[in-house]
Amino acid sequence: MHSTPVATWNVVDNADEVVLTKTDFRNAMSRLGTAVNIITTNGPAGRAGFTASAVCSVTDEPPSLLVCLNRSASVYEAFKGNAVLCVNVLGAGHQDISNLFGGKTSMDDRFAVGNWSQGQAGSPVLDDAIVSFDCRLSQITEVGTHDILICKVVSVSTRLEGQSLIYFNRQYHELQVEN
Amino acid sequence: MHSTPVATWNVVDNADEVVLTKTDFRNAMSRLGTAVNIITTNGPAGRAGFTASAVCSVTDEPPSLLVCLNRSASVYEAFKGNAVLCVNVLGAGHQDISNLFGGKTSMDDRFAVGNWSQGQAGSPVLDDAIVSFDCRLSQITEVGTHDILICKVVSVSTRLEGQSLIYFNRQYHELQVEN
Repeated sequence: MHSTPVATWNVVDNADEVVLTKTDFRNAMSRLGTAVNIITTNGPAGRAGFTASAVCSVTDEPPSLLVCLNRSASVYEAFKGNAVLCVNVLGAGHQDISNLFGGKTSMDDRFAVGNWSQGQAGSPVLDDAIVSFDCRLSQITEVGTHDILICKVVSVSTRLEGQSLIYFNRQYHELQVEN
Repeated sequence: MHSTPVATWNVVDNADEVVLTKTDFRNAMSRLGTAVNIITTNGPAGRAGFTASAVCSVTDEPPSLLVCLNRSASVYEAFKGNAVLCVNVLGAGHQDISNLFGGKTSMDDRFAVGNWSQGQAGSPVLDDAIVSFDCRLSQITEVGTHDILICKVVSVSTRLEGQSLIYFNRQYHELQVEN
């Protein structure tokens, strides 16, 4: 399940060099603006969903994105067991559902909010997400505490008129965009 | 250099299922707002830099981020040879330098714009980036046409007062944030 450290890239894995504290790293990362996403899954291992900013496009050959997930997260086993997920990109007005899926609420209570349909690969699709990427897991790389879930995108659904919700400086911001 | 496809996650690698075209994927991805970053390197393989949105926090144990890079990109060999990079997160007013590093201009002409210093690991640091992450490459995962460069963050420098530059709907947007 591990990718191999790459000696040919002259990687210097000198743990002593890293003097950056978690706090310094997190403060710096708060200055990297991101979209806000609810990542969902459903299948034999159960329905689950959580709010995440660590989502990234990878390549369009094949259409692929990635999601970073802490292996100690309560939702981890559901994603592992189902091996499908949907990235629902949130828009203006989605702050409450973002907080709900980022908190400690039970899965049933999370999915009681919002209108959900089922994607082609089986995961819950939030009907008013500004875009949803319905995916199958294709590859995993472990990095420290987290797994990078690399996913092939099976289908997308897009609302062209939606405004983007951005998280920056530990606050939500609604982009005002003319469509 | 490859991570292993994970059979235990019930991964279904059925290429026939993907009916999504590149155009559909790219149009959908244009709806995922991102920060705008200039990724730089310097060392034995030469100085290089390019504009990228595919940057993502991974974990704070150890402090790590990732950058996705097309293996056919002109800058690829420089990043491969140096095995260090800096993620310079752009702010309001950085649209011109973003376009410069996203175009076909020579490396010397790119770095003639902006004020640069040298990070601890050796890469160019843009002095007025809203945050810069000075990194060493620690792990690589190939996905389709791209490499995911997983990097350990050695040091950061942060400007606390800067406004964020966001790319969404194929346009730049400046977040108006009270600091």
